[in-house]
Amino acid sequence: MRTQVAIVGAGPAGVLLSHLLAADGVESVVVETRSEEYVASRIRAGMLEQSTVDLLRATGLGERLDREGDRHRGIHLQWPGERHHVDFVDLVGRSVWVYGQTEVQKDLVTAAHARGQELVYEVTGTLHELETDRPSVTFTDAAGVPQRLEADVVVGCDGSFGPTRAAVPDGVRRTWERTYPYSWLGILADVAPSTDELIYAWHPDGFALHSMRSATVSRFYLQVPNETDVADWSDDRIWDALAARLGHGQDGWQLATGPITEKAVLPMRSFVQQPMRHGRLFLAGDAAHIVPPTGAKGLNLAVADVALLAPALVAMLKGDHALADAYSDTALRRVWRCTHFSWWMTTMLHAGDDPFDRELQLSQLRWVTSSEAGAAGLAENYAGLPIGF
Amino acid sequence: MRTQVAIVGAGPAGVLLSHLLAADGVESVVVETRSEEYVASRIRAGMLEQSTVDLLRATGLGERLDREGDRHRGIHLQWPGERHHVDFVDLVGRSVWVYGQTEVQKDLVTAAHARGQELVYEVTGTLHELETDRPSVTFTDAAGVPQRLEADVVVGCDGSFGPTRAAVPDGVRRTWERTYPYSWLGILADVAPSTDELIYAWHPDGFALHSMRSATVSRFYLQVPNETDVADWSDDRIWDALAARLGHGQDGWQLATGPITEKAVLPMRSFVQQPMRHGRLFLAGDAAHIVPPTGAKGLNLAVADVALLAPALVAMLKGDHALADAYSDTALRRVWRCTHFSWWMTTMLHAGDDPFDRELQLSQLRWVTSSEAGAAGLAENYAGLPIGF
Repeated sequence: MRTQVAIVGAGPAGVLLSHLLAADGVESVVVETRSEEYVASRIRAGMLEQSTVDLLRATGLGERLDREGDRHRGIHLQWPGERHHVDFVDLVGRSVWVYGQTEVQKDLVTAAHARGQELVYEVTGTLHELETDRPSVTFTDAAGVPQRLEADVVVGCDGSFGPTRAAVPDGVRRTWERTYPYSWLGILADVAPSTDELIYAWHPDGFALHSMRSATVSRFYLQVPNETDVADWSDDRIWDALAARLGHGQDGWQLATGPITEKAVLPMRSFVQQPMRHGRLFLAGDAAHIVPPTGAKGLNLAVADVALLAPALVAMLKGDHALADAYSDTALRRVWRCTHFSWWMTTMLHAGDDPFDRELQLSQLRWVTSSEAGAAGLAENYAGLPIGF
Repeated sequence: MRTQVAIVGAGPAGVLLSHLLAADGVESVVVETRSEEYVASRIRAGMLEQSTVDLLRATGLGERLDREGDRHRGIHLQWPGERHHVDFVDLVGRSVWVYGQTEVQKDLVTAAHARGQELVYEVTGTLHELETDRPSVTFTDAAGVPQRLEADVVVGCDGSFGPTRAAVPDGVRRTWERTYPYSWLGILADVAPSTDELIYAWHPDGFALHSMRSATVSRFYLQVPNETDVADWSDDRIWDALAARLGHGQDGWQLATGPITEKAVLPMRSFVQQPMRHGRLFLAGDAAHIVPPTGAKGLNLAVADVALLAPALVAMLKGDHALADAYSDTALRRVWRCTHFSWWMTTMLHAGDDPFDRELQLSQLRWVTSSEAGAAGLAENYAGLPIGF
């Protein structure tokens, strides 16, 4: 088999990249370890920033998003006794959309099938000759036949556990990592959201987030200690904690409850690997960086990576290497901006044991919600910078 | 002896308060442990924010400041390879003034003598009956005679080592404290500043600050480990470290050197005690709070305290207690804002050992110097919020 761009990983980064390349006449094949159903059903983030929505629309992938997505002007920030709305539209003229990553994935894969792009599922690729101009990916296909996919370029969109990240040699790659001293208990419930826009709540018991998936499905998160066992969190305990931390009864606000359909503990981690290019291998999305979910940046950062990478590869395959040579440095500027912002939102909102830190958090929350500069700083980062920043 | 307001401590907070009270016809006596010469010669901060300058002018104390003070539009922020100017005037319409605390102190004391305000030096006061409406301060005067200063109100402006802070009973006062894992080596040198406005420099070897006192005297600070012995820092070592950290030779910039006239190691600490009022005792300035010097907030915060307290006491002595009852909460809003800002500037600029933290610092510096919201957030806090915020 031969293609121009071999893409490892059929999550949103990989499939979106194949669309962007196809729009410029560049052929690609996406290989994915998991099944199509597995990838489609993974529950992930649900907040799209302005640039992501703009790009999906421009690629002809925004139709259902525009119909079913829920545009939010901003978020609510709260702490005991106070809730404030931060209006991104007023502050920076940009907004965000609640539209699950699961839905984005469906739209991307449906369009890939309709457009005849090649997605090969349930094969585990091995990378070869990345430092030459004839790299390849080998795998055994569904019929048990060994295959070699030859390409001009290999792109790793295979997330934090895939093989491409590790294909950058030890002496070349540098990594940075931070594990946070708390996790999130994520909950899905069949109940209409009790809020119009997301509520980010600081509370001495721990952070809580009221998000939503649709008019009938709410998504909640609770700060819990690392190593928390889901079994210790009964439905009653979850609703009691959400009521306390989100301020049920405060100024008459009510938290509606309903059947909980999923509970899972999510670790909080920051990770960056650079460079994001080595020879003919390019990394995009979680393969190169992980952010904690507090700033809703994971999917959006992956989209920003491939939005930079696609035109760079198109030019490179025509012989112009400038954008491809600049890709790693350009992408990493945004990666570190989002890594910093995600760290900032995370450390502002998660209560620890240190009383001085708690007062700093409250002072910062008061400033962010009362100063136009403070609010605009949050809005600019949350609603997202333009692609190419 | 009897007065309306007994002020403990003749630093800038105490003497300025006596001026503000006198302007409204309220009598005060200031008692101070140290000698007039000692207080006058202590080297302290040198940056006045807009509100401080406005207040000194309004109190008739701004004449020499206007003549000799150096108005700065902003500061320079730098890291290896880049220097950026943050222009407070463009960003928030406010500026700052380089005018040493030593000079402010001289102006305050000269005017106090000229106006006949009573300053009693070299006496150590003991506080009595603070929870009644007849508090008093006793001391032994220069002639060895025991004295009792009776007052309606006692104000503690006696800094972090004075007795008033500790006069708030244990069950009432709460304190917050943070000791930073580094100190500053402060240097005075007889050399013209090599910069028009302050340079705050992040460097992997540690933070450096190029400040100034006059057209012929420069002030420098170097981040050093806690417990550093000044004897380990020869003049040559100091100039080499300043040259490296401040970027001598970068884009042609030159650091001029000259005779070093003073070296001292300064600890970096955050401290807040609340409430700032107990019975008839009110605390102002360092008696209630300490900030690390990075944000240049110590003196300005003390001035903001007494600017709030003076009208509160004037009203209280006429029988209207509302402002006095609100003083602690109102003052603490600004105290925590400045405590947070000082912590933020400090942690953004001081290099530690953690590689992830270093990248966060650089990412934040890039954002602050490239985003208008980021720059405005720094400018708003550094140039200072209006009194009463």
